[in-house]
Amino acid sequence: MSEAVEYDVVVLGGGPAGENIVDRTRAAGLGTALVESELVGGECSYWACVPSKALLRPALARADARRVPGLAGAVQGPLDTAAVLAHRNYWTGDWKDQGQIDWIDSTGAHVYRGHGRLYGVRKVAVTSPEGEHHILSARHAVVVATGTRAVIPDLPGIAGARPWTSREATSAQEAPGRLLIVGGSVVAVEMATAWQALGSQVTVLARGDGLLPRMEPFAGELVAEALREAGAEVRIGVSVEAVVRDGSTGPVSVVLEGGETLEGDELLTATGRAPRTEDIGLDTVGLPAGRWIDVDDTCRVPGHDWLYAVGDVNHRALLTHQGKYQARIAGAVIAARAAGTPLDTAPWGAHTPTADTRAVPQAVFTDPEAAAVGLTLAEAERAGHRVRAVDYDMSKVSGAGLYADGYKGRARMVVDLDREVLLGVTFVGPGAAELIHAATVAVVGEVPIQRLWHAVPSFPTISEVWLRLLETYRG
Amino acid sequence: MSEAVEYDVVVLGGGPAGENIVDRTRAAGLGTALVESELVGGECSYWACVPSKALLRPALARADARRVPGLAGAVQGPLDTAAVLAHRNYWTGDWKDQGQIDWIDSTGAHVYRGHGRLYGVRKVAVTSPEGEHHILSARHAVVVATGTRAVIPDLPGIAGARPWTSREATSAQEAPGRLLIVGGSVVAVEMATAWQALGSQVTVLARGDGLLPRMEPFAGELVAEALREAGAEVRIGVSVEAVVRDGSTGPVSVVLEGGETLEGDELLTATGRAPRTEDIGLDTVGLPAGRWIDVDDTCRVPGHDWLYAVGDVNHRALLTHQGKYQARIAGAVIAARAAGTPLDTAPWGAHTPTADTRAVPQAVFTDPEAAAVGLTLAEAERAGHRVRAVDYDMSKVSGAGLYADGYKGRARMVVDLDREVLLGVTFVGPGAAELIHAATVAVVGEVPIQRLWHAVPSFPTISEVWLRLLETYRG
Repeated sequence: MSEAVEYDVVVLGGGPAGENIVDRTRAAGLGTALVESELVGGECSYWACVPSKALLRPALARADARRVPGLAGAVQGPLDTAAVLAHRNYWTGDWKDQGQIDWIDSTGAHVYRGHGRLYGVRKVAVTSPEGEHHILSARHAVVVATGTRAVIPDLPGIAGARPWTSREATSAQEAPGRLLIVGGSVVAVEMATAWQALGSQVTVLARGDGLLPRMEPFAGELVAEALREAGAEVRIGVSVEAVVRDGSTGPVSVVLEGGETLEGDELLTATGRAPRTEDIGLDTVGLPAGRWIDVDDTCRVPGHDWLYAVGDVNHRALLTHQGKYQARIAGAVIAARAAGTPLDTAPWGAHTPTADTRAVPQAVFTDPEAAAVGLTLAEAERAGHRVRAVDYDMSKVSGAGLYADGYKGRARMVVDLDREVLLGVTFVGPGAAELIHAATVAVVGEVPIQRLWHAVPSFPTISEVWLRLLETYRG
Repeated sequence: MSEAVEYDVVVLGGGPAGENIVDRTRAAGLGTALVESELVGGECSYWACVPSKALLRPALARADARRVPGLAGAVQGPLDTAAVLAHRNYWTGDWKDQGQIDWIDSTGAHVYRGHGRLYGVRKVAVTSPEGEHHILSARHAVVVATGTRAVIPDLPGIAGARPWTSREATSAQEAPGRLLIVGGSVVAVEMATAWQALGSQVTVLARGDGLLPRMEPFAGELVAEALREAGAEVRIGVSVEAVVRDGSTGPVSVVLEGGETLEGDELLTATGRAPRTEDIGLDTVGLPAGRWIDVDDTCRVPGHDWLYAVGDVNHRALLTHQGKYQARIAGAVIAARAAGTPLDTAPWGAHTPTADTRAVPQAVFTDPEAAAVGLTLAEAERAGHRVRAVDYDMSKVSGAGLYADGYKGRARMVVDLDREVLLGVTFVGPGAAELIHAATVAVVGEVPIQRLWHAVPSFPTISEVWLRLLETYRG
């Protein structure tokens, strides 16, 4: 093994979080190396957010157009699936990362392609695909940003059944005739929406907690209703007991509790994520392998003043945008510590990702879209806040009705009655994905209800739901 | 003339502002009468916001769908104009107001149909269409909410040319073959967008200040470019000198400075609004007729402690939502003064419409949509603020590119460098109308830039432009 190459910062994992560490530390003048074993750009760019939205946007645009008199007649037919898949391929760069590599190069950071492992304190060993070895040492910080992988449920027969995970579901080059989806998560409902629109007959098999169980209950209910209207089968409260697949290209069956068997052409399991920490050398610094990495409020690993973890792998919030946020802040932390300047780690300070615990937004690109930020009613109550949930039927908003004939949707804001600020907001309905940022600003800004009363929504937008929520709260 | 009927509050004009006075004063337990000479619901419901958006939504949804691979092929054809017009008719209730009357009735307020005029202090005289007379007296307040009418430009030949105003443009029952539009205002560009999509050949004739002159300059530029791409002719910097129309159904011509003549089948003049105050008895209380009504920061007319004006007629902000906002606040003011409870007229207090001067939002439903809140760069500089404008090309936002292939748009935020808060924000691009409320919350909430850094936009939404603006500001 060669002598160590020295950097200020070494980043393990080149997804969006790792890339933002590169960006921020390079902007601070630090010398940074990035190690990536697959594609620079990470899960988000190739097998998650980006390709899923490229698949979903035509489904949602068609659903929107079907609700518009004068246009609806033109869009009753099927999508051009080949065109959609080709466009998705374009957005993933055909699963090539040269564009991202070029961007990293433009920052002056160095990319090591290969498998990186911690190699004791402040060191990373990289094994390239060609079998070359490099030792990188980090003057200031090693940042783990290796993300997560899909968990395949431990079911009898699953090993031979070649199930799809989010990777295959976002990168498939043709629509399966019948797609079975096990799970009720974001991946499950988004892929159900996409593939049903792209020509598959989709069946969603979710447990008793239903669809989108981490959101307000009405989110999953409205999405389930719409999936059924789109022709998918949605079964809630079922448990898959076994999977059967014979041969290499034939159909796949799932056996439900009670014995019923369902057959499909492909099976997507969308039942959770696990940290990619099994084989990254955590044992060489006394940390357990295969677990989420605990961090403090600067994203640093307690007891290791040179080691940080950002993005999914620290389990604070498993969302691309939140990982990027942590990386922006951790990048600033590393730069400040390297320069010996003081940190501002007060809540909402420059050096702590406070939003991770107070204001994580999420947009689900189903039809209807579901978007939320902050705490649900149940979460707020569990956290001991004195709260009131204010609901509003979005179909009663003029801007919503003008946007879509037969608009269906629901909004909820959770008000902290002691401070009269919002703890959380949920919108479900067409267009909800772009509505949520206003709520994020309100929650993060801790803007009092009395002040929000002056934030006038433009008429006739869907955003007028804000006025209705505030009027409902005031009574 | 009969004896006076006594109420707590008498409202002159039943548009959205007047209706909100009814709502708020009735909620406070006051006895309220509403006088309306045309349709309860006002300009907005029958000849402005509502029918215009019913006409525009199909145009915008088609434009959106044309930018989505896999769907674009289906929507290359024309809109079903008859279906769009029928749907617009539905939204206006076929220009009948029974639904609104039912709502007023449900509040317990009394509606007087007829022409209302002030009749001295605290009194309103109503002449019904049948020629009956009523005198209403108001214990606490008379509220003028008579709105505005279109100004028809004083051009030679205009009288015989039967020009369309916003009323005819939003209520026409067929698309004119060729529509000439004089003006560059919101009405001009929205109606150009709608009728061009509905089959007319539109020509827009705007003066040297271009389209949407009250917004950031790039708004009008992007809208002009898109109108031209949609097939409309847009001429900036032209001056119409005369209008010629012979006969009752023939074509109409406009003569431009320099002598060029353009012919159309209809002519829309969209060049401004005037207050509907000529014949409402202002002279009986010593106020000039035909002018905007000056009000103080509680919407009360100085020197007349019983007289209020809300909505367009007070000239604070000629927008439905802002008139409603004033009415909510003026309603609370009237109720508080009636009850003898103290007012909170500090900035952003419960009893003063502070947003009128700091945070008026506007959404223009063109393709691309244009939306803004607060001050433009030029306005902020004129007001003496030390500011920096931060611009971002929205086509570089992943969520925008995934929303629409070939997305074009631009964002600007105007930062107050002394306080590090936003004074104004403008978004121009598909979907911009629903983006602006986040900016409204930020401007109204005076959320510092440092805090906005924690307001994470969900990936991949168009709202991620917020992150890019903040990154650009930080450099």
